[in-house]
Amino acid sequence: LAERNRGYFMGRGMAVLNLVSSPGSGKTALLERTLQDLAAEVRMGTIVGDLATDNDAQRLRKSGAPAVQITTGTVCHLDAHMIQHALEDLNAPDLQVLFIENVGNLVCPANFDLGEDLRVVVTSVTEGEDKPLKYPSIFQNAHIVLLNKMDIADAVGFDRKTALANLQAAAPGAPILEVSARTGAGMNAWYDVLRGLAKKKNRTTSPHG
Amino acid sequence: LAERNRGYFMGRGMAVLNLVSSPGSGKTALLERTLQDLAAEVRMGTIVGDLATDNDAQRLRKSGAPAVQITTGTVCHLDAHMIQHALEDLNAPDLQVLFIENVGNLVCPANFDLGEDLRVVVTSVTEGEDKPLKYPSIFQNAHIVLLNKMDIADAVGFDRKTALANLQAAAPGAPILEVSARTGAGMNAWYDVLRGLAKKKNRTTSPHG
Repeated sequence: LAERNRGYFMGRGMAVLNLVSSPGSGKTALLERTLQDLAAEVRMGTIVGDLATDNDAQRLRKSGAPAVQITTGTVCHLDAHMIQHALEDLNAPDLQVLFIENVGNLVCPANFDLGEDLRVVVTSVTEGEDKPLKYPSIFQNAHIVLLNKMDIADAVGFDRKTALANLQAAAPGAPILEVSARTGAGMNAWYDVLRGLAKKKNRTTSPHG
Repeated sequence: LAERNRGYFMGRGMAVLNLVSSPGSGKTALLERTLQDLAAEVRMGTIVGDLATDNDAQRLRKSGAPAVQITTGTVCHLDAHMIQHALEDLNAPDLQVLFIENVGNLVCPANFDLGEDLRVVVTSVTEGEDKPLKYPSIFQNAHIVLLNKMDIADAVGFDRKTALANLQAAAPGAPILEVSARTGAGMNAWYDVLRGLAKKKNRTTSPHG
């Protein structure tokens, strides 16, 4: 099913990012700001998973971009089948970038391919510098790491050097973008990634990847 | 197996607390301080679960109290069987209070009874006020909620009123203790709970509960 999703995304020229993180890393705030700031440049939409409530989809829709909520009940991750159904509900086949905001969990989502192009781990300065070592599976397959809440790094006594070393060891080769979804600091590097994906995807002509 | 654990804990007069939280809520820091501050009053020990590394057991052992690390690999929670084995390794049958620090996860640990007396949810002011609504199962069975990192509440723009209302709705009847493991503020209410448990448990004479 993940392969079918991948083929569909290729067929539509849609870049798909699977955002995973622990609860409270600021994924939704980060997407809110992204949807607002890039609204004029990139056609974006979101599928968002939580155990309960559609709070996040409601927040994300305020930007004007389409958003569909999946509520998983007791399931700690999204899967490819849920994404297929959500795509029908989203009914927005002309997106350039689709964000999938996974259930807040540093363990379960690691094992589920949704057909995405890029896996993005969002982590924040409040979570402790050792998290990449303690949850290796989720970091191992990350294509990009967003290190969020840099605006409160000093207030929480964030040890930047140790954190970056641990992130680099756990997610080798993944760029680490230091951002603040609250102040906007550092967000432009992230936006450049999205601009690049939107351009590149328009040229895809076969399901060869 | 959970019932066997429960019987064993009763037989030994040991109060057992299962601490669950999202990654980075400060469970380990909170236990470090607790083990230090109550060392002269209560005999305490810890079993701690992580996917990988024994960093936490090493940190907790510095207090002088015994600590055993369980590494779960890819499993997102502890179970009663793991606890049985860890109790052998801990080899400390005369504890008054045993802390079980579960894998950092707001979903999976909700469904696994370890034989504990009390389930304690640790959450922090950085995680967003809506988390109790989005992860209802873990809060629903909480006996106590520790709201940690109160020292940075202002820095992160914490909305205390909304957070307390959501916590009360999600964990009806559970006392909410506002604490800072870093500064020690509010920790005495938590210590009083532990002092009370240590006293009460000494009087248990049958497995009737």
